[in-house]
Amino acid sequence: MSSISSKGSSRAPWITYRPELKVLDCTVRDGGLVNDHQFDESFVKAVYESLVAAGVDYMEIGYKNAKRFFPTDKFGPFRHSDEEAMRRVVGENKTGLKLCAMADAGKSDWKKDILPKKDSVLDCIRVACYVNQIPEAVEMIVDAHEKGYEVWCNIMAISTVNENEIDQALEVLAPLPIATITVVDSFGSLYAEQVEILVKKYKAAMPGKEVGMHAHNNQQLAFANSIEAIIHGANRVDCTIDGLGRGAGNCHTELMLGFLRNPKFKLRPLVEVIQNQFLKLRQELDWGPSIPYIITGQRNLHPRAAMEWRESDKKDRFLEFYDKIVTDI
Amino acid sequence: MSSISSKGSSRAPWITYRPELKVLDCTVRDGGLVNDHQFDESFVKAVYESLVAAGVDYMEIGYKNAKRFFPTDKFGPFRHSDEEAMRRVVGENKTGLKLCAMADAGKSDWKKDILPKKDSVLDCIRVACYVNQIPEAVEMIVDAHEKGYEVWCNIMAISTVNENEIDQALEVLAPLPIATITVVDSFGSLYAEQVEILVKKYKAAMPGKEVGMHAHNNQQLAFANSIEAIIHGANRVDCTIDGLGRGAGNCHTELMLGFLRNPKFKLRPLVEVIQNQFLKLRQELDWGPSIPYIITGQRNLHPRAAMEWRESDKKDRFLEFYDKIVTDI
Repeated sequence: MSSISSKGSSRAPWITYRPELKVLDCTVRDGGLVNDHQFDESFVKAVYESLVAAGVDYMEIGYKNAKRFFPTDKFGPFRHSDEEAMRRVVGENKTGLKLCAMADAGKSDWKKDILPKKDSVLDCIRVACYVNQIPEAVEMIVDAHEKGYEVWCNIMAISTVNENEIDQALEVLAPLPIATITVVDSFGSLYAEQVEILVKKYKAAMPGKEVGMHAHNNQQLAFANSIEAIIHGANRVDCTIDGLGRGAGNCHTELMLGFLRNPKFKLRPLVEVIQNQFLKLRQELDWGPSIPYIITGQRNLHPRAAMEWRESDKKDRFLEFYDKIVTDI
Repeated sequence: MSSISSKGSSRAPWITYRPELKVLDCTVRDGGLVNDHQFDESFVKAVYESLVAAGVDYMEIGYKNAKRFFPTDKFGPFRHSDEEAMRRVVGENKTGLKLCAMADAGKSDWKKDILPKKDSVLDCIRVACYVNQIPEAVEMIVDAHEKGYEVWCNIMAISTVNENEIDQALEVLAPLPIATITVVDSFGSLYAEQVEILVKKYKAAMPGKEVGMHAHNNQQLAFANSIEAIIHGANRVDCTIDGLGRGAGNCHTELMLGFLRNPKFKLRPLVEVIQNQFLKLRQELDWGPSIPYIITGQRNLHPRAAMEWRESDKKDRFLEFYDKIVTDI
């Protein structure tokens, strides 16, 4: 049993692999934030099949969000991930891939919409919350666990949270039935040294649980920060095919699988699905690094202003955006 | 005087800055590899003016390559960087920006083409070589120093060089009048841990000299690896505006200046020149991360095959490229 061990503890730790390290692909869930989850079902199926073939461990297929907040006439089916929509894509999912959905505190009718696991094709519920929503997240975690799911918890926008608040949140979460707690850099503003501090903090506060990393690419650091998290002991990493995701996008699954030397991972199915599905999607949707995301990332701001700019007819007027951000704050 | 210090030696080292850290922008030199240096002179002038305004320390304006290898009917003026071409852009360069040109071993008539410093607007010569060209590089370094220049040395494609060869090369170079020795990841294949090892090795072998980092973006790690080099003591970093450079491109100058908190650096002039010059250049030239570069980067291969693919009518047939690389080696 080999490992990608801590810095300096071995001459060339990257030459081998850590078998317990698992990859979660959230292409459809995070990518749906670019187009209100208005994906063709054939696209979602192609993503699913490529992830199975690539040996990826988890697929996050969508949100479990409430229809009263996200009406079906505006949002596609994977904003709600109803059982029948998922089964149209994955059938009974008789594969090695575990299926997840994300439920947000404050936006989900989780008591009603998350079925008992025996009635669902889902294996895992990811509870997402901002730090001020920890009390609801606690109820959601207990509920999903009691329904029979593996449960993850993602505290979002961690780069904006005071250290004392993080410590307090982890103390509240530590006794709960959480399999993985994820460091979430929603703004793509963390540098490697900050990732190191957070991963070590999460690990120390949550003995017996896995730590994950969810990185955004505003400063082109999503892949590097995910590697940094792995070096410091994270055994779960989130990524998306071709980096599809909100704003500057995410850590690319195809980069991550190339870094992880576990022979169970196969790159070829991802290269194929990128060529066949993602190239045409790029004609329709705008995601990935761009100057406005660099500007918000450097300043630890939500990418909302940059996303709105990129969707407007001013999308390439970078200087005007820069001046607006500088003078707004 | 504060510093971006080694990992863990301070609570938040990134909040401050290291005044001795200097940035070299090689946009025109490395970017010219995309278009045989066929830039409009107005573009080169806009780059120069933006770098002066941004407070960048060095501008590498081009190569000092031989016209017999790179004829003037095919290659633009900054493949040769004749004095009159440079002066048309920078005048006498009465600014705080130091001007450099790169001379390659094996491709340059350096004895003749590099003038005594008193007759040149250049401040600095960067000698580039592969490890097998160290003997010629030694002569070039001594020559440039005797002519009065600050001299840097870049051993290229270091990810392909055996450790014993690196040690031997550094031993040969250590006594020479080199100001900076640069770790050059030509293939964009190094991970952070490898950068750490190389920077520490260069520093240990070359006391009294500065260590630099030149990173490529094949795996989207150019910026992250440059930060890693800085953390381990590199005080010189190469980068290019909008990442313009061969293949997947380079570390972006606008990302680097955002990371370095030295108040002398200004981001706004770079945002302006990207909007006014680089957006239209992107309509004409192809550079930046793409699946073929990921595939060569992951395998520690020269990006040549990927560049040829991206220039051909098969540019987006990623799967065919993947299968070719897998079966070719």
